[in-house]
Amino acid sequence: MSLTNATPLAVAQAARLGSRNLAVLPTDERNAALTAIHHALADGKDAVLAANAKDLEAAHKAADGGTLSQSLVKRLDLGKTGKYEDMLQGILDVRDLDDPINKTTARTLLDDNLTLSRQTCPIGVLLIIFEARPEVIANISALAIKSGNAAILKGGRESSHSFAAIASLISRALSTTTVPPACLQLVQTHDVIADLLKLDAYIDLCIPRGGNKLVRFVKDNTTIPVLGHADGICTTYLCADYPADKATKIVLDAKVSYPAGCNALEQLIIEAPALTTTLPAIATALLQAGVSLRCDAASLSALQSSLPPDSAALLQPSTPEDYTTEFLNLTLALKTVTSLSEAITHINTHSSHHTDAILTLSRPTAETFLAAIDSSSVYWNTSTRMADGQRYGFGTEVGISTNKIHSRGPVGLDGLTIYKWVLVGDGQVSADYGAGGRKWKHRKLPVGGDEDVVRDDEERELLWRFRVGRSMEK
Amino acid sequence: MSLTNATPLAVAQAARLGSRNLAVLPTDERNAALTAIHHALADGKDAVLAANAKDLEAAHKAADGGTLSQSLVKRLDLGKTGKYEDMLQGILDVRDLDDPINKTTARTLLDDNLTLSRQTCPIGVLLIIFEARPEVIANISALAIKSGNAAILKGGRESSHSFAAIASLISRALSTTTVPPACLQLVQTHDVIADLLKLDAYIDLCIPRGGNKLVRFVKDNTTIPVLGHADGICTTYLCADYPADKATKIVLDAKVSYPAGCNALEQLIIEAPALTTTLPAIATALLQAGVSLRCDAASLSALQSSLPPDSAALLQPSTPEDYTTEFLNLTLALKTVTSLSEAITHINTHSSHHTDAILTLSRPTAETFLAAIDSSSVYWNTSTRMADGQRYGFGTEVGISTNKIHSRGPVGLDGLTIYKWVLVGDGQVSADYGAGGRKWKHRKLPVGGDEDVVRDDEERELLWRFRVGRSMEK
Repeated sequence: MSLTNATPLAVAQAARLGSRNLAVLPTDERNAALTAIHHALADGKDAVLAANAKDLEAAHKAADGGTLSQSLVKRLDLGKTGKYEDMLQGILDVRDLDDPINKTTARTLLDDNLTLSRQTCPIGVLLIIFEARPEVIANISALAIKSGNAAILKGGRESSHSFAAIASLISRALSTTTVPPACLQLVQTHDVIADLLKLDAYIDLCIPRGGNKLVRFVKDNTTIPVLGHADGICTTYLCADYPADKATKIVLDAKVSYPAGCNALEQLIIEAPALTTTLPAIATALLQAGVSLRCDAASLSALQSSLPPDSAALLQPSTPEDYTTEFLNLTLALKTVTSLSEAITHINTHSSHHTDAILTLSRPTAETFLAAIDSSSVYWNTSTRMADGQRYGFGTEVGISTNKIHSRGPVGLDGLTIYKWVLVGDGQVSADYGAGGRKWKHRKLPVGGDEDVVRDDEERELLWRFRVGRSMEK
Repeated sequence: MSLTNATPLAVAQAARLGSRNLAVLPTDERNAALTAIHHALADGKDAVLAANAKDLEAAHKAADGGTLSQSLVKRLDLGKTGKYEDMLQGILDVRDLDDPINKTTARTLLDDNLTLSRQTCPIGVLLIIFEARPEVIANISALAIKSGNAAILKGGRESSHSFAAIASLISRALSTTTVPPACLQLVQTHDVIADLLKLDAYIDLCIPRGGNKLVRFVKDNTTIPVLGHADGICTTYLCADYPADKATKIVLDAKVSYPAGCNALEQLIIEAPALTTTLPAIATALLQAGVSLRCDAASLSALQSSLPPDSAALLQPSTPEDYTTEFLNLTLALKTVTSLSEAITHINTHSSHHTDAILTLSRPTAETFLAAIDSSSVYWNTSTRMADGQRYGFGTEVGISTNKIHSRGPVGLDGLTIYKWVLVGDGQVSADYGAGGRKWKHRKLPVGGDEDVVRDDEERELLWRFRVGRSMEK
């Protein structure tokens, strides 16, 4: 990793060249680079936190002056209990995952001695633009190197000291490895972004990590494919059959455990009969946790009747804008519906297709919801805050995608790979086939390496007899 | 399918609404729609060919007048032997493929009673813009309906009669099915494209099928993700160890069998020792087939010494532009290299990352080439013309992608799906986990429906003992 002042074109060309060398490095050399980065960041924790303290000081001043939001300040803080350790552990988690590249994911026998394989490979050069969250630089570096991709990283001004400190440690760590230094380059000045976004000949994928404004700016100013999400307007649909205690626990977690997160709950959709049964308990818990409730007419009236006057006085009527807003703070919009289809229509229209949940005891209701909601993650009886690469078992994540192409939802290692088609023949040509010629076999072949897959008819027979025997014992 | 004069916004909104209904139709209803389309196009063949004759007549005039290329005229002709039947068969092939949506492709146990699944689903609304090739409308319609996607189709002016005839037949066929008519809409006037390209709120993916100019225009004028390829500059690297007879057959097929195809060969890269051994025979066959050879200095000199004077007189020296040109006609550029790495660098720099092949008897050489070439399809000992969805066993294709994200290479049904993450829990919340709390299990589960997958430890033990027993018998 080098903190560079080179021109954007030079940065991108160097990254492209570096990526070609990185792509063919063996697994253990890429893993060794991650170990080196982990050790360097562990040893340098004090220096990084000292730099982070400078960023935080400036951010607090800016927040007091009203030029920076409190949620951005929160994201900036690397000293929060466990955050630095999580960052370090994330690097090791990524290192210990299976190598995502050079894997055969499908094989087809097209004809005798003519075999088509689909093999995973790196995407090439990533451009990652992020605002606050300095720990992202470590996550992204780990994911990029593990997946064989070069990355150009542009950090936000607010975290410039933290970034520089981390970059310097990673740079020294990498110099002891076989990963070419140009594979991780940090650019700091804001004015290079516009130029980088034009370099689609060298950069394969752009990942903006930040607010709506940043993502929109990137999307509107590049022909490079963009992976990410602009908004995190997550919803939860509360059905009347779901118990109040579980619902309260889930809704509180979704709203309160990290309100600045993109997976935090912004809208609670309520099946009308729940207004007077389970909603009062949930609302009371939310108000006690300091959440402002923006209620539609039906929920406002129901809660005003059922809550004690001092609580009811805290309720606010909602406006239409409340249903298209990512609050990122302790505000929650309430919306009442009278049917599942009304809930589905409201969510498909108002959510940002990030993560939406249903709370119900009814399997048919849940299945209809999960199928019809057009979002990257859809949940049944759990909190929207589960939408996270670490929680999904990806080690860490490069971002959360609401794209409808390529990767969707939390994006980990697999989302940083693409594939190529490899066709191996023995002189066959296209004109041999078709009308009157040879016929295609198009026979699916097993994909090697999975020891648990049955290999032949004899093993299949054995397993079948064993299963029949067991089922008869029952 | 309706030939529509509605505004672009109305077209896109109707497609979006239709797509939501199409996405939840069962497999057999989507398949029944394909059967109906097949029958209608089979019955209406005469009408379509009569309309196509009108387009062809106009195209021939335009070609004679120099305003249309001969390769475009060729792509327009639906009457070419077997082309209409191939189009019809393609619809049935797609119908008979496995349903690509609602498939679980991965499952992870995050914790007890908390299971994450990855399930395939349609992308939503596709915008397909094509120039000539009227049969594309049938392919695309079949792929879109089968994969649960709505499609807005914009045909080129050159094939307007053919498109209208096909659209009318498909429209009548669909009216007898449960597929909403708004799921397939044909727009004909050119001036709507710019407006459609702005509607990223309703359209999820744009697929331009046509020349470099069209693809560039689309990429430069939309924030909708674009899938496709601008150029098809395919190369083949001839190693000196490969026999002349097989090499001749492969190179001839790649260059001559359909020069207007995007998978046709445009550059032959020659390992220097082959200049005097196998190249003369290959060059002779190419010249006899009417191919113009644009030779670099080394190949020009070698061929002038070895070919008879009347053949040698046909050779032309190449210019640098010949190595960045998609000829789409009977022209081939020759380039001599002295090493595998020189060949790889030349191809990675000059090919359009579509399809590149190596001809060699050496496995290590081939494996290095296949790994290092950064293209969507890489071949060993076969013709670049194999790059085709039908040949890959996809039934038919929606296009060939040189994108580095989403689908790559020939794009069939699977390339028209995306996935959603489905998480089913029982009240778990994110704050339960992490430091001091519950541990994630992150256990990979078998994907249902595959009977050959080993299900538990007892079966694994059984199979292991069986395999050990067999290996000891050998």
